[in-house]
Amino acid sequence: MHRTRIRIAEDALDANTTIANANWVDFERAGVQVVNLMSAPGSGKTTLLERVLPALPLRAGVLEGDVQGAIDAGRLAALHIPVVQVNTDPGFGGECHLDANMVRSALPELDLGAIDLLMIENVGNLVCPAEFRVGEDARAMICSVTEGEDKPLKYPLMFRACELVVINKVDLLPHLEFDLERLQYNVDAVNPEATQIVLSARSGEGVEAFGEWLTAIPERAAAAA
Amino acid sequence: MHRTRIRIAEDALDANTTIANANWVDFERAGVQVVNLMSAPGSGKTTLLERVLPALPLRAGVLEGDVQGAIDAGRLAALHIPVVQVNTDPGFGGECHLDANMVRSALPELDLGAIDLLMIENVGNLVCPAEFRVGEDARAMICSVTEGEDKPLKYPLMFRACELVVINKVDLLPHLEFDLERLQYNVDAVNPEATQIVLSARSGEGVEAFGEWLTAIPERAAAAA
Repeated sequence: MHRTRIRIAEDALDANTTIANANWVDFERAGVQVVNLMSAPGSGKTTLLERVLPALPLRAGVLEGDVQGAIDAGRLAALHIPVVQVNTDPGFGGECHLDANMVRSALPELDLGAIDLLMIENVGNLVCPAEFRVGEDARAMICSVTEGEDKPLKYPLMFRACELVVINKVDLLPHLEFDLERLQYNVDAVNPEATQIVLSARSGEGVEAFGEWLTAIPERAAAAA
Repeated sequence: MHRTRIRIAEDALDANTTIANANWVDFERAGVQVVNLMSAPGSGKTTLLERVLPALPLRAGVLEGDVQGAIDAGRLAALHIPVVQVNTDPGFGGECHLDANMVRSALPELDLGAIDLLMIENVGNLVCPAEFRVGEDARAMICSVTEGEDKPLKYPLMFRACELVVINKVDLLPHLEFDLERLQYNVDAVNPEATQIVLSARSGEGVEAFGEWLTAIPERAAAAA
């Protein structure tokens, strides 16, 4: 009998990558660009989507990931944005992230022919979502200025995983002891390649730049092909 | 050969519970009361500890849990509070929570004879930390008013796991569209037993009530024994 070494963690990630690739092929075939949007709880993912999606020159849909409930899906559906809800609570105590297979299980519910852009709103968490590709073309995260300047240094994997870092809630800056330049310096220290967009989803300031970034994803994909 | 059914998830939690109980016995023997403090990233755990611990009529120490770095430990050590740092990044991509064995591995570094109260500052995350007891006497969480009123409904396990829910950053209420009563109603809906304390770690408003809650833990333990 020969000895076999089983590496569980790598196998689990390998399976995820296989399914993520299958998702990506399906999205690509349908001509849908996909963004995996991540952040800590309460950073303003849904508020930003409410603000930006209706104004886009693209047909956008949303896949909502939550441990429980469909509060955010309801907010977006009220704006006539197509939304599919994925709840992670059947997992071990409620999964703290979306993985590729959860997204795959939602594919039959998504009318990919009716959209050009799919925003995947991940579970609010700065750790595990960064470890699981789900078939996206780009990864974006939101960091709100109420969370402190140190977050890139404490959760570097998340900041490194993303092509775009949105800095949200800048309308609150006059009321905080917060050094925006220090946050931007810290983002740059862990991920110098990342695009940074400073905005307020509440006031609308800077949201146009996020809309332009989303609109340019198909152009970037075409240029890369 | 009879058939055996292995339930991996429960086994993993059983092992954690066994080690958590061993930790609890060690803390109890040393006369140290232990609080597991949890929240989303950037809710103000460290700022609240900076504010409350030096004013307590107890000798308090802190076990700092972070994926990477020792920023918060440095802030507390500057106030002459004994601090031990646990980094979770050797785990699979950086563990998103502290478990009982991580806390156990820190015990040799903790001078339990020199403290009456140990605050365990967990990794910033509203999902997984709630699933892992670490040997604590009480569990407390912080929810900041910048995170929205819906968090108890989206992360019910965390709110249910805690004896105390601290509502932080109320100094920002004048600048937010936020319904404090609605948040308190939602906390009450998922955990009617929880004590709620409304405060601002930054202004100091309400922090005294949190200090009184911490001071009363040994009294409650004595009354229950």
